[in-house]
Parts: sequence; structure tokens; C-alpha cells
Amino acid sequence: MLITKSQVKYIQSLAHKKFRDAEGVFVVEGPKIVGELLRAPNLRSRVVYALSRWAGELPEPLRAVVTVVEESQLERLSALTTPNQVVAVFEKPVFQAPDFDKGVHLALDGIQDPGNLGTIVRLADWFGIANVVCSEDSADVYNPKAIQSTMGSIVRVSVRYEEPGALIRRSGLPVYAALLEGEGVYGIGRIDKGWVLIGNESKGIRPELQPLATRRVTIPRIGQAESLNAAVATGILLSHLVG
Amino acid sequence: MLITKSQVKYIQSLAHKKFRDAEGVFVVEGPKIVGELLRAPNLRSRVVYALSRWAGELPEPLRAVVTVVEESQLERLSALTTPNQVVAVFEKPVFQAPDFDKGVHLALDGIQDPGNLGTIVRLADWFGIANVVCSEDSADVYNPKAIQSTMGSIVRVSVRYEEPGALIRRSGLPVYAALLEGEGVYGIGRIDKGWVLIGNESKGIRPELQPLATRRVTIPRIGQAESLNAAVATGILLSHLVG
Repeated sequence: MLITKSQVKYIQSLAHKKFRDAEGVFVVEGPKIVGELLRAPNLRSRVVYALSRWAGELPEPLRAVVTVVEESQLERLSALTTPNQVVAVFEKPVFQAPDFDKGVHLALDGIQDPGNLGTIVRLADWFGIANVVCSEDSADVYNPKAIQSTMGSIVRVSVRYEEPGALIRRSGLPVYAALLEGEGVYGIGRIDKGWVLIGNESKGIRPELQPLATRRVTIPRIGQAESLNAAVATGILLSHLVG
Repeated sequence: MLITKSQVKYIQSLAHKKFRDAEGVFVVEGPKIVGELLRAPNLRSRVVYALSRWAGELPEPLRAVVTVVEESQLERLSALTTPNQVVAVFEKPVFQAPDFDKGVHLALDGIQDPGNLGTIVRLADWFGIANVVCSEDSADVYNPKAIQSTMGSIVRVSVRYEEPGALIRRSGLPVYAALLEGEGVYGIGRIDKGWVLIGNESKGIRPELQPLATRRVTIPRIGQAESLNAAVATGILLSHLVG
């Protein structure tokens, strides 16, 4: 099937947050993640453009219309240097209103790198954390790189954008804040409720949020690296606190 | 100072492993990491091109000649969309021959993503692991993205390329292999010697290496994500085994 210029332009526009927000949708590429998202009960696809070999290998009936395109057409639609069989547009997932009075939640203060953000959402999913709250200056989780890094966890983890301070205060839950000069995470033990608060890749948690910390938590350093990657640090903290 | 076409070509050629290997050098960009590498005792710079504001702010005398260039010239040299003040070429660092009879070492089997590899080297540095051995099909740690992700740890951690199987056997040290169906890492406790063996991002540890495992180690999953990012998984394992 032929694709029109306006279809190409529409897909390309969704590389920008402004257009994703206006339309309430996001783009995702590649057979593995698109396959998984098409099977998610809380997600609806708008359009799916795929090579015939991908469309022909789908293992089960899908609630989606797949438009088969030629390789040259997929190249026009794809943001990747090497297009990967399928480009799809999905509506953003909808989640039940979260219950912030109990359980463990993740709060992110100014995570800037989309890859880090997506990896953290995947981590939350691994450790059974259903809610991630991002400060409004964080990267957009529907950014193509972030979505790719979630590896499909975006359908199971609710990610919302809201200044975390007020939300944390209202919840009344304890706050485990990742800070360089805190107590070692190895001595804290498992928690069954609270916020795990992670800061920006280079600046850490902003000063206004730091007083919210019930416990200031550090990953003890043995060697000499100046810091850890934000997603790695989140993974280590979660494995010790909720793993 | 004016830069010549051949200087631009030389820097650009170093984006390719073949030329990096032939010259024994690598490129790195940005004030923070270049500043750190210039201060490393075991590293020598070949050329440093910098804007005058960066060169003027250097806090201490450096064993390097800095060529001050205009912004337009830096743009020609840089591989970044937004050049970041300085582009430098360094000779690959030289390390003492490692002692694989004792201590904890990291072995990587086919890590493909340069960002993951660099993040793992930074992690090794954080946890005081001096040696990382990569299978020959792994990403190149001198790839610009990998170098950037090491955040300077490349001068403190020895990264070598060699098939890990023979090396592990010769060392006689126990092997803690990251596998999906192993025992939970939380029950293993701290180790003071051995190999931590990490596999490829999607395929894991190749079948031929799996029999080397003394302990098959897993990060228990609570939620539903299918897997963890390789660097995140490495960080979690190291924090429990050597943290």
C-alpha cells in the first residue's frame, strides 16, 4: 500500500513532545516491542506500518489493523538509521488512579536522559513498582528513545508528571532519598511502603526536596568512580529495598 | 588557530575501530571528561582542540598542548550535534599485567551496546574491580559512546579483549554467572574472589561458557518485565556480591 506525504509528516511530528501531547499518542518501532504492545490489554494502536514478512509472522490475531508497506516506504516513516520491520502509533496507556497511601513508589527528580528514564521504568516493572512520578522537568517517557528503553514496561507501569514534593507530603509515606552522603543502603533492610526518591544525573535531588528524606540512602563506594549512572543506582537501591 | 582538512579527517576516522586500533588512540569530547583524562597519570594526549573559554578556565597546569579553536572549527571536528567546548585524542591507557589468581574480576560475554559497556566499566570502577575482560565480539570500549559512558573510569579499569573461557579456566577462580534460572543473588553473600560473568543483552551467556559457572546467579523478579538492562543487572549483582 502507498503511504502519503501527510502520513509521513504525521509520524515524524510525533518525534516532538508537543505533537505527542496534542494527539495523546506515541511512536514505537521494532518487531519485539510492537508485538508486545499490540498484546497489551490497556493499549490501543492507531496505525501500524509493517513489512509483509513481519505481518505474516504474527503468532496470534491482533486487535489492530496492520498496513503492509514496502521497505522503501518504511524507511520514510522510520526515525532509525536501519528501520526495523514495523513502525506503530499507540494511544498513551490509561491507568487506574494510583493509591499513594501504601506500597512502594518511585519519584524521579529531573531525570534528563530518555534512555535512563526508560530503563528506570523497566526496572520498576521488574521490581513490581506500579507507579513512577516524574518532576515536570524530567525527560518525556513517550520520547522514542525512552519508549524503546522501557522494553514494553510502559503498559504496566503508570508514569505521571507532577511535582513530587506535594504528592509525597500528602501520602504520608517515608522517603528513601538517594544522596551521596547518606547511610549505606546495605544496612536498611527491606521496606514495604515508602517513596524511593532519585535525583538528576549530575545534580542529584534538588535542595527543596531533600528535607523530605526520612532516610538519606547511599550506595557505598569502594573504588574511585565519581558517581553511578542514574538507572544503575536506581536498580541497586530497589534490589536492596524491595528485592 | 586554523585547522586543516587532514586534521578534521583524522579525527573523523577515529570514529571507526579500525583506525583507532591502527593508531592506538581514541577521541573524547566535553570539558568534564577531557579535564579528568588530562589529569590521569597513565594517559597521554595526542591533540586537544578547545574553545578559548575552556582553555582559559583550566584549574591547573596540564601535561598537554591545547590548541585553541573557534566554535566553527570545533563543529567540524566534533561528532556531536552540539559540540561541547573540547575534542581530544588520547593514547589508549596502559595497565600493569593483571593478576587473575585472586580478587574479583568481571567477564563480559558479547555486550553489544557501547553505552552499556561504558556504564559497566564505570560500575567496575565504583566497586573497586580493576579488570574487565570482554569476549572479542563485544562492543569496543573506545567507541565514542562507550568512552563517554565510562565517565573517565577508563583510566582506572583495565579492559581487555580475549575469549573469557580459557582465561577463567586458567585462573581457577569460582564463577558467578548471571543467568535467568539461577539461585537468588540475595542469598549468596559477599565474595572476595571470583569472576562475575555477564552475558549478551538479549541472548545472555553463550552455551559454551555456561558450564564454567560455579554458581548460577539470578536477580529475583517480582513484577513482569521480561529482563533487565545488562548494565543495571551488573550493578545489582556487584552491589550484592562485592558491595
